[in-house]
Amino acid sequence: MTRQSDPREHLASAKTQAVLRIQHRILIAVREHLREQGFIELLPPIIGPVTDPGARGAKQVDIDYYGHRYKLMTSAILYKQATLLAFDKIFFIAPNIRLEPLETAGTGRHLTEFHQIDVEMAGASRDDIMELLESLVRRVIEETLDTSADTLGEVGRDTAALAKALLVPFGRQTHSSAVGRLHAMGHPQNSDAEIDWQGEVRLASEAEQPFFITDYPKGSRGFYDRENEQQPGSLRNFDLLAPEGYGELCSGSERENDYATIVARIRETGENPAKYAWYLKMAREGIPSSAGFGIGLERFTRYIAGVDSVWQASAYPKIPGEPSP
Amino acid sequence: MTRQSDPREHLASAKTQAVLRIQHRILIAVREHLREQGFIELLPPIIGPVTDPGARGAKQVDIDYYGHRYKLMTSAILYKQATLLAFDKIFFIAPNIRLEPLETAGTGRHLTEFHQIDVEMAGASRDDIMELLESLVRRVIEETLDTSADTLGEVGRDTAALAKALLVPFGRQTHSSAVGRLHAMGHPQNSDAEIDWQGEVRLASEAEQPFFITDYPKGSRGFYDRENEQQPGSLRNFDLLAPEGYGELCSGSERENDYATIVARIRETGENPAKYAWYLKMAREGIPSSAGFGIGLERFTRYIAGVDSVWQASAYPKIPGEPSP
Repeated sequence: MTRQSDPREHLASAKTQAVLRIQHRILIAVREHLREQGFIELLPPIIGPVTDPGARGAKQVDIDYYGHRYKLMTSAILYKQATLLAFDKIFFIAPNIRLEPLETAGTGRHLTEFHQIDVEMAGASRDDIMELLESLVRRVIEETLDTSADTLGEVGRDTAALAKALLVPFGRQTHSSAVGRLHAMGHPQNSDAEIDWQGEVRLASEAEQPFFITDYPKGSRGFYDRENEQQPGSLRNFDLLAPEGYGELCSGSERENDYATIVARIRETGENPAKYAWYLKMAREGIPSSAGFGIGLERFTRYIAGVDSVWQASAYPKIPGEPSP
Repeated sequence: MTRQSDPREHLASAKTQAVLRIQHRILIAVREHLREQGFIELLPPIIGPVTDPGARGAKQVDIDYYGHRYKLMTSAILYKQATLLAFDKIFFIAPNIRLEPLETAGTGRHLTEFHQIDVEMAGASRDDIMELLESLVRRVIEETLDTSADTLGEVGRDTAALAKALLVPFGRQTHSSAVGRLHAMGHPQNSDAEIDWQGEVRLASEAEQPFFITDYPKGSRGFYDRENEQQPGSLRNFDLLAPEGYGELCSGSERENDYATIVARIRETGENPAKYAWYLKMAREGIPSSAGFGIGLERFTRYIAGVDSVWQASAYPKIPGEPSP
C-alpha cells in the first residue's frame, strides 16, 4: 500500500478526485436519508473543556483557551447526548482529531484528522438504532451504485462485490462469539478487550455483507455505553464491520444517562469526574435516554470506493506522525 | 442584549430550537444552490502547519502535532486555493477558531468558534463571484421565507423587512465612498483600514437590501486578495453587508496566485514566508487563478432569523473569554 504522495500529486490525481466525488455522493445520501427519518443536522463544537476518553490508544490535543486548558474533540459523544435536550433526533458531520500511535501509520485505517457521521436518537433502543444504521448503509450503497457507477468504475471498484452487501440482512454476532471465531483461526484475541484491527480485518475478510458485533465487554469502551442489567460486565453496544476485509466502519450503543452510574463508570476508568463538570451537571439535572452511532466517514468512503487506504478518502490526509498540510 | 444563558436553558429554549431549525434550512438551500451550479462540497482540514493571518485582532491557537507546532484554522483560504488543483468549483462548511479580543464579547457579532460557507471558483473574476454570492443569498432568503414562515414567526422575525431584500439588485459602493458616508455621519473611520464593526452597523442600519462594499485598501486584508493593477493599493475584493443594522456577512475577492507577488505580499505584512512552506510550494508550481468568498454562517443565520446575537445561532456558543462547553 503506497503512502500519501505529494499534496499536489494527491489533489491532481484522477483517483483522488473520483474518491472525493464518491464521498460527496455518500454525504448527499446520508443527509437525505436522515432528514427523511426526521433528523436535524447541527454543527458540533470542535473544542471544549473535555472530550471523549474512549479513543483506543490515541492521544488528545490540548489547547490554551483564554487561560483554560481545552481539548480538540476526539468524538462528539458528550455533545450528542446533551443536544437531545433540544431535539429528539440529531446528527452531525463531526471533525475529530486523535493523535494515533505511530505504528498505525501503515494500517490504511487511521488518520489523525477524520470525520464521523454522528447520529443520536432520544428514547431509542439498541435495536432501533441498529435498524436505522443498517437502513442508512443500504441507502448509501444503493445510491452510489445507482448514481456513481461510472466513478466507481474509474477507481476500479468491484461493484458486483459491493452490490452483494444488499442481498440479505446484515448478520449479528456477539463479541464473545467473534473472539471464539478468531481463536479458531489462530488469531490471539484478548476476550476482555476491543477486537484489534487485525482481528477485524480477518473477520471482515470472510464476509460478503456488513455485519454487527454486539455486547462488547465493559472496560473495552467508553463510560457512556450502557451496561446490560441482565448481563453485568457486558455493554448494550455494537460495531458495524464492512466486508471484503475492510473492517470496522462504525461504533454505537444505548447510552448511560443515569447520573450516579455515569460517575461510577468514570471512576472505574481511573478518570476524575471533576473534568467532566459541564456534562455531569447536565446529567445530574437529567438528559434523555438514547442510542446512537458514529460512522467513520473516511473508512466508509474507503469501503464504498474500494480503495486501499483511508488517506485516499481525504483531500488533505493526515497520517499519524507524518507532517502534512 | 442578554448573554448566553446556562447550556441547558439555551438548548431547551424554544427560541434556540427555532433558530437552529432555520440554520438547518439555510444549509439545505446553500447546498442545493451550489450543487446546481456545479460545485462539489469537500471537508476542510481543521489543523495545519499554518493558517490565515488575516483575522483582524484575533489570536490563533497553537497545538503540538507530533512535536511540530500546528495551528487551528482561522479560515480555510489557503486550502481553498490549493483545492482548485482537484476541482474548479468547490465549497466547504468550514469550522474556524479565532480567539477574539475580550472587548468583542458584547458585540453580538463575535464567537470564537464559528463556521464559514467557503466557496472558491477557478478562473472566476470578482464580478462572477459577486453574482454567485448574490444569487446564493437570494435563494436562501426565498427558501426560508417559503419553507420556514412559521419558524420565522416563532422567533418574531419581521418577514416583510426580510422580503424587501429581494426587491432590487444588491447595491455596490467602494470602500472610499463608504468611508466618506461614515465621515458625513460623524463616524471616525480610518480611510486606510477595514471598516470597523460599529461603522458597518451604521451603514447597515440605513439599508433595506444587502449591499456590497468593494476595493478595500491593501493592508486592511490578507495577502491572498489580489491587488488592482490599474489602481495600485486597492484590492479586487468586497464585503457583503446585511441590511437592518446586521452588518458584515461575508468577505471575498479575486485571489493572488502569482508566486513572486504572494511572497512579496507576505513580506509586506511583516510575516516570514517560510511559515507558509507547503502553500508557497504549491503556488511556485502553479495554482489556478480564482475568486471566492466566505459567509459567516452564524451571522447569516442571525440576519435571516432576525435575532440579536450570533450566540443564538449556535448550539454550544463560545463567547470570547467566557468558559463554556
